[in-house]
Amino acid sequence: MPHVSLITIIEIVAILVGAFSGFIEARRKRMDLVGVFTVAFITAFGGGTLRDILLDKRPLFWVQHQEYAILIFVLALIASPLIRTLRQIVSERLIVIADAIGLGLFAVAGVSQAQAAHMPVFIASMMGVITGIFGGVLRDIVCNEVPMVFRDGKPYAICAFFGCWLYILLMKTDVPDDFALWASATFITLLRLLTWKFDMRIGRH
Amino acid sequence: MPHVSLITIIEIVAILVGAFSGFIEARRKRMDLVGVFTVAFITAFGGGTLRDILLDKRPLFWVQHQEYAILIFVLALIASPLIRTLRQIVSERLIVIADAIGLGLFAVAGVSQAQAAHMPVFIASMMGVITGIFGGVLRDIVCNEVPMVFRDGKPYAICAFFGCWLYILLMKTDVPDDFALWASATFITLLRLLTWKFDMRIGRH
Amino acid sequence: MPHVSLITIIEIVAILVGAFSGFIEARRKRMDLVGVFTVAFITAFGGGTLRDILLDKRPLFWVQHQEYAILIFVLALIASPLIRTLRQIVSERLIVIADAIGLGLFAVAGVSQAQAAHMPVFIASMMGVITGIFGGVLRDIVCNEVPMVFRDGKPYAICAFFGCWLYILLMKTDVPDDFALWASATFITLLRLLTWKFDMRIGRH
Repeated sequence: MPHVSLITIIEIVAILVGAFSGFIEARRKRMDLVGVFTVAFITAFGGGTLRDILLDKRPLFWVQHQEYAILIFVLALIASPLIRTLRQIVSERLIVIADAIGLGLFAVAGVSQAQAAHMPVFIASMMGVITGIFGGVLRDIVCNEVPMVFRDGKPYAICAFFGCWLYILLMKTDVPDDFALWASATFITLLRLLTWKFDMRIGRH
Repeated sequence: MPHVSLITIIEIVAILVGAFSGFIEARRKRMDLVGVFTVAFITAFGGGTLRDILLDKRPLFWVQHQEYAILIFVLALIASPLIRTLRQIVSERLIVIADAIGLGLFAVAGVSQAQAAHMPVFIASMMGVITGIFGGVLRDIVCNEVPMVFRDGKPYAICAFFGCWLYILLMKTDVPDDFALWASATFITLLRLLTWKFDMRIGRH
Repeated sequence: MPHVSLITIIEIVAILVGAFSGFIEARRKRMDLVGVFTVAFITAFGGGTLRDILLDKRPLFWVQHQEYAILIFVLALIASPLIRTLRQIVSERLIVIADAIGLGLFAVAGVSQAQAAHMPVFIASMMGVITGIFGGVLRDIVCNEVPMVFRDGKPYAICAFFGCWLYILLMKTDVPDDFALWASATFITLLRLLTWKFDMRIGRH
């Protein structure tokens, strides 16, 4: 089934991007293996876990799919050479693209699950944004930093927010659910890449 | 129904005071719109949300009442001019009074819900204090500060603690439940204002 | 029943060790009574509470046993003289031993509850480690520090991890459940003391 495979591949890419962002931040803080694994894990799964706790949904995604935890664990064991190698063969552009794909996927997964749980629409859009950004927020809190996404003025959460509303609106029309999902996730990814390309900022208060 | 209206007005005031405290702290940290909204939201609803997660109570208050989330969102959009204006027309005294009302209301809401969930009495009093203070605690953690309420030596949590015990004791007598609620909330507010007026301190360790 | 008594005594020791570690850290941050109690409480119960939230298990241990919360509250009132006295009569060696016992007990309690909740084995081992170390992690986050267990390079979480796997393997054999529990907890404690004695390190990344 190529459809399932595509989702699985995108899912793994999104999780790996989260994990690598955690590896890099944990290394910058000179953490040991335990810290590198934990921070990577929190970055990859923190947003979805917070959403599921707020919605009281169990089992958690990573509890059902222990293969992802094991994958991050194995990668954490080789994090140092891995990051060095990746930095040589992977451009910053590719990391931003992969991260934008992850943002779209996570946010739309969040808003769709909140809608399925009959949340009011504004709360559902918040759940989408939380799923998209709170992995990074929790990573920064554990690393003793003010969360980057709250202070860099880049429209990251805002791209997720608009895309969640696109999803909510599409679900009120006759379009198939699958189309609403993919169109919204793609919209978030493209909007994120566009704002990155033109280095747009939202006003700092 | 004037009774319901009064509770609703007090509730809105308490939430707004929490949100403004978040606005001010987020601005001090030079956060952008996303940070300003999130920190305000966490300050206003963090305590009650933590209590509900610990008690496993759903749906969360703000999930049921999305109008509060929308209100904070709209205010976050105009946070900068709003804070400037409020600083000119609202005295510090008024902010402290509003905050003391919020503390009383939140703490009593917390202890009463914990009692309704058949928690043991000491745990119920802790749940009241958590509801009253953890919005500010989570705000400070997200803003990368040691929580103010843990270190300023001012009897803030302690006022909530005594008021929660007053509520627990009153509920063991024949007084109507409503009286116990309002008397305890008023007691916390007055005790907080009294300790503020006379600048009392608890011993620092 | 001497068996129950032994568990209760070890449990109290483990909780007290967590609380004292919280007292010491809160004092170092010059916190007041509210901070000292809260940080001690979080250190003692944070790991188990996080595990129970992730597993959606209620009531929480400390909600069912309010005597432990009251005990920490009373000790917090006398934390300063208590710490001074203990420093004179208790050697660092004794604190490390008590802490190692606590690590073993908490980790094995975590993995066994996760197994009872039918978690996959790798997730169960993670739950054991979370129960053993996240009290200290949350303590450090509240105290605005990068968590010590993520950066000191000492094999603390790793001892818990290996012991959890020993428990998982023993439970697949015919040995009695009680033996698996005690053997694994003892293994963690001894392994922790051995790595402490020889000042072993895991590689920093």
